Amino acid sequence: MPHAPTDVLERRHASIRASLRAAGLDAAIIVSLPNITWLTNFAGSSAIVVLDQEQLTFITDSRYVTTVSDMQAAAHACPALTLTSVDGSYDATLAGVIRRGGYARVGFEASHLTVSRYRWLEQTLGSSPESPGLVAMDNALEVARSVKDAYEVALFRTAGEMLAEVTRHVVTLPRAGMSEREVALQIDTAIRRAGFERPAFETIVASGPNAALPHARPTKRTLGEGELVVLDFGGVYDSYCVDLTRTVVVGAASQRVRDVHDAVRLAHDAAIEATRPGASRFDIDAAARDVLTAAGMGEAFGHGTGHGLGVEVHEDPRISRRGPNVDTSREAVTPGMVFTIEPGAYFPGWGGVRIEDDVLVTEAGVELLTRVQTELITV
Amino acid sequence: MPHAPTDVLERRHASIRASLRAAGLDAAIIVSLPNITWLTNFAGSSAIVVLDQEQLTFITDSRYVTTVSDMQAAAHACPALTLTSVDGSYDATLAGVIRRGGYARVGFEASHLTVSRYRWLEQTLGSSPESPGLVAMDNALEVARSVKDAYEVALFRTAGEMLAEVTRHVVTLPRAGMSEREVALQIDTAIRRAGFERPAFETIVASGPNAALPHARPTKRTLGEGELVVLDFGGVYDSYCVDLTRTVVVGAASQRVRDVHDAVRLAHDAAIEATRPGASRFDIDAAARDVLTAAGMGEAFGHGTGHGLGVEVHEDPRISRRGPNVDTSREAVTPGMVFTIEPGAYFPGWGGVRIEDDVLVTEAGVELLTRVQTELITV
Repeated sequence: MPHAPTDVLERRHASIRASLRAAGLDAAIIVSLPNITWLTNFAGSSAIVVLDQEQLTFITDSRYVTTVSDMQAAAHACPALTLTSVDGSYDATLAGVIRRGGYARVGFEASHLTVSRYRWLEQTLGSSPESPGLVAMDNALEVARSVKDAYEVALFRTAGEMLAEVTRHVVTLPRAGMSEREVALQIDTAIRRAGFERPAFETIVASGPNAALPHARPTKRTLGEGELVVLDFGGVYDSYCVDLTRTVVVGAASQRVRDVHDAVRLAHDAAIEATRPGASRFDIDAAARDVLTAAGMGEAFGHGTGHGLGVEVHEDPRISRRGPNVDTSREAVTPGMVFTIEPGAYFPGWGGVRIEDDVLVTEAGVELLTRVQTELITV
Repeated sequence: MPHAPTDVLERRHASIRASLRAAGLDAAIIVSLPNITWLTNFAGSSAIVVLDQEQLTFITDSRYVTTVSDMQAAAHACPALTLTSVDGSYDATLAGVIRRGGYARVGFEASHLTVSRYRWLEQTLGSSPESPGLVAMDNALEVARSVKDAYEVALFRTAGEMLAEVTRHVVTLPRAGMSEREVALQIDTAIRRAGFERPAFETIVASGPNAALPHARPTKRTLGEGELVVLDFGGVYDSYCVDLTRTVVVGAASQRVRDVHDAVRLAHDAAIEATRPGASRFDIDAAARDVLTAAGMGEAFGHGTGHGLGVEVHEDPRISRRGPNVDTSREAVTPGMVFTIEPGAYFPGWGGVRIEDDVLVTEAGVELLTRVQTELITV
């Protein structure tokens, strides 16, 4: 459960209410759980919020009624919250809340609501001239979430330093003969012992040829001498996610290992250097990509350079390649944005390298949140 | 990555293809990842499948191309799979695949596709008489997944016994003075050391008043003498989820603790006894609920009695209360279904008890997959 102070939540509500007024909407239906966490501090697995200009109706089921009552009794209560317990089904309860609200135009999250729920709601609310109209909203909450407030920036500074400290220990763990799963288990233990609530995602330990798979899952494979091992892990601190990758070599590094690691490290440094207020997120990606292309490894870098961090481990902004069919909205990064920089180079059958850090865009430029060595580590 | 043999996958494809023919559909767009895992053995985080009568087009991005090629080179290859790499965006690539297929009517998962993706696809595919029409599908895959095949039943028997073995150790862990988080960490370690890929969900360790919250997250709270501690945990084995809960008492149990635990245990036993082929899932719920109501604890049992298990930890069938606004389709349970039985009783401010096991519906009746004592354990 996050602990955003009431006045922070109040400012968030005010910003979303202003978007609603600008779009001519009387209320908004919020079904996305990360958006609900950001609006209310609630971190459970089931809820719907209806936000209008006066109140925030919080719909949840019996499993969470006590949680929400406790949350509201605490110092960091969510302002103007009315709790409504689910009667029968969530969507039937939601339809009742909308009807009682007497709204004419109600926004919904088109990027989250499924077609079947939308059609059911539309049909249930009816199509008479008095029925409320459902209007697809832009990603108003995601856009607001992508710029962190002072409360969140302070959390990220703490969490970034905690993750850097975990990393100093974690990079010493791999040994020839250990399995990927055993290393992952020790990493997850270190993350939790450091004070994180839990790992932010399934820890990646990818050794030898598996290191060529950017999203490998830890297997029973044991680490061999001279092999690269990609360690990609993160933690959740007060509901916010941080994420880091280092690639180590078990025993002596070959010249090719050193060359690939050097190129990825230069790409990582170039992308951080390109990060400043107003910079295009595509140009930050290009800064990393150009370095790898110049080293003859452009083809080996298939994914984007980074992603935003927040109550989700992947959120806006996307630091990705400019190209056909790529969403070009909100191109410039702005102060308060927090995202990863994580170029990599992958060679099927051989292995791969990725180096990832978390950065904050500041008024002055960029701040590295995860300060820990990026030089190749031999274990 | 699951390892369903090719002939098992072939039978699954055949059953979905038959549903498509029956619905007059030329192809189906599958965006739900658990459905994709069940169809193909792929267990990554990003893919779309288009299934027609001849082939299965598998769309994924560069991060997974090698994974899919390796999967197809293995003994358990997915039949008739054509790999298509994402060009620009997933949905633009999908639109290209649909156009090239020359389909007239294409089904989509209305319970998974979001409104914005649907609208974009509809607009991109066009509305001329030659354009493919998008048709909302029933939950054909979820329904098929709810009845396990022989390959899956064998997995569940192994995983159930593994989880029972973990449980025998786990119930001995809690001690006065330990924090909930420390107990959860030790449980997760035990789950992984036992050979599970990972915990199936965030382990619940809820002590004292926290035990009254059915979905509590482990906190820094330390366990006290005489307190109830709910331990709810699960493991993923070859991509399939098992799930179990025991409630233990730290030190001496009061009479009230014993009374609540007895009532929940009787409710648990009654629901298992009510489980047989053809039984209504609402009647199985009622069997547990009636016992608690008779003990004066009906109000204290707010959630449903159970949920299906499979590649997801919550899937069909839902063993829940009959009532207004409750989906009453597919009421009877049938051989091959695997689900939890997990009644509980929760008293805000005091604590709670939940006892959960996993069962398989057989031709003969019911088989308990997680055989481990249900009597109150004092630690």
